[in-house]
Amino acid sequence: MTSAKKDNVEISVGGVTRQLTLVPVGQMGLVPLVEFLGDSQLTKAAAQAMLPLIPEGTEALLTVVTNALPLAHELSDLSGLPYEVARKKRRTYMQRPLIQEVPGLTLGVSETLWLDGPHAERLSGKKVLIVQDVIASGAMAAALARLVERSGGTVHGYLAAFKQGDTALPIIYLQELPKWVSPPA
Amino acid sequence: MTSAKKDNVEISVGGVTRQLTLVPVGQMGLVPLVEFLGDSQLTKAAAQAMLPLIPEGTEALLTVVTNALPLAHELSDLSGLPYEVARKKRRTYMQRPLIQEVPGLTLGVSETLWLDGPHAERLSGKKVLIVQDVIASGAMAAALARLVERSGGTVHGYLAAFKQGDTALPIIYLQELPKWVSPPA
Repeated sequence: MTSAKKDNVEISVGGVTRQLTLVPVGQMGLVPLVEFLGDSQLTKAAAQAMLPLIPEGTEALLTVVTNALPLAHELSDLSGLPYEVARKKRRTYMQRPLIQEVPGLTLGVSETLWLDGPHAERLSGKKVLIVQDVIASGAMAAALARLVERSGGTVHGYLAAFKQGDTALPIIYLQELPKWVSPPA
Repeated sequence: MTSAKKDNVEISVGGVTRQLTLVPVGQMGLVPLVEFLGDSQLTKAAAQAMLPLIPEGTEALLTVVTNALPLAHELSDLSGLPYEVARKKRRTYMQRPLIQEVPGLTLGVSETLWLDGPHAERLSGKKVLIVQDVIASGAMAAALARLVERSGGTVHGYLAAFKQGDTALPIIYLQELPKWVSPPA
């Protein structure tokens, strides 16, 4: 079927090509899904392509669980820059965590981010790059930026593997993804 | 203080040394915490040390979020073996996920694992190695093993960076961690 062919979304990063899974969201259509979890080849290729996009002077990276986690690890390994991870659940071992609400998001449900106190301290006085797998509305990126500021660091930029939709933030990214793919008629 | 010194837990993996954070758990004492998140150097060193411990014939890896995730990614990258990740929350995009209870655990609270259907299919007919950061009671490892069997795969072994406490499972690991560290008198 040509309609099925038309609805394919293919990405190609550093010689690694993937057909994205299309996920139905409500009655509104299909959304392409980039899965870094379970795909070390794509993760590594994306990190290698993102490496030269890290702004000069960056001193640390901040990301958020879960899909961007192996990507941030890989980018940290390649660049030699330390990275920190905001969690979406409070862990029992956290000490004086910073708590940050993420308003809105795609489905209108707000989320809460937790950054462990000792990890926040490591961002203090640093130029911090926000790293994500996909930036859509930018609500999550903005919440991460607030965590950087509340940690005493400075936001040095926003780097994502993919841009999906519109955001007012000045983001750096590898490739743009369609926000919606229409279902076959 | 010598008591503080006595209570230090140090790990050393492939030339990377870390003093572990000691986390108070109830009134019972302090538990050493290994943090792979935010530490790409330790993660990489651990994966490199674990690589020769992968049993001959292994065809895929299965891990669980979150702390073991960068480790499994790195081990997949080094070994060339594919890996899959069980989640602790249902994701909206999952198709026919396998749902698996993890009984007990340390704090007596049961957890639920979710393995997306298309990911479970990739384990079918494969010899699968369970990969974790730390294996303690083995309850999580046993639940992951059930996911392998329910996916139509065969459990080919259990590999952890650290063993912490007693388990009946025949696990392979780099180093043993103390289960408890007594608080200073």
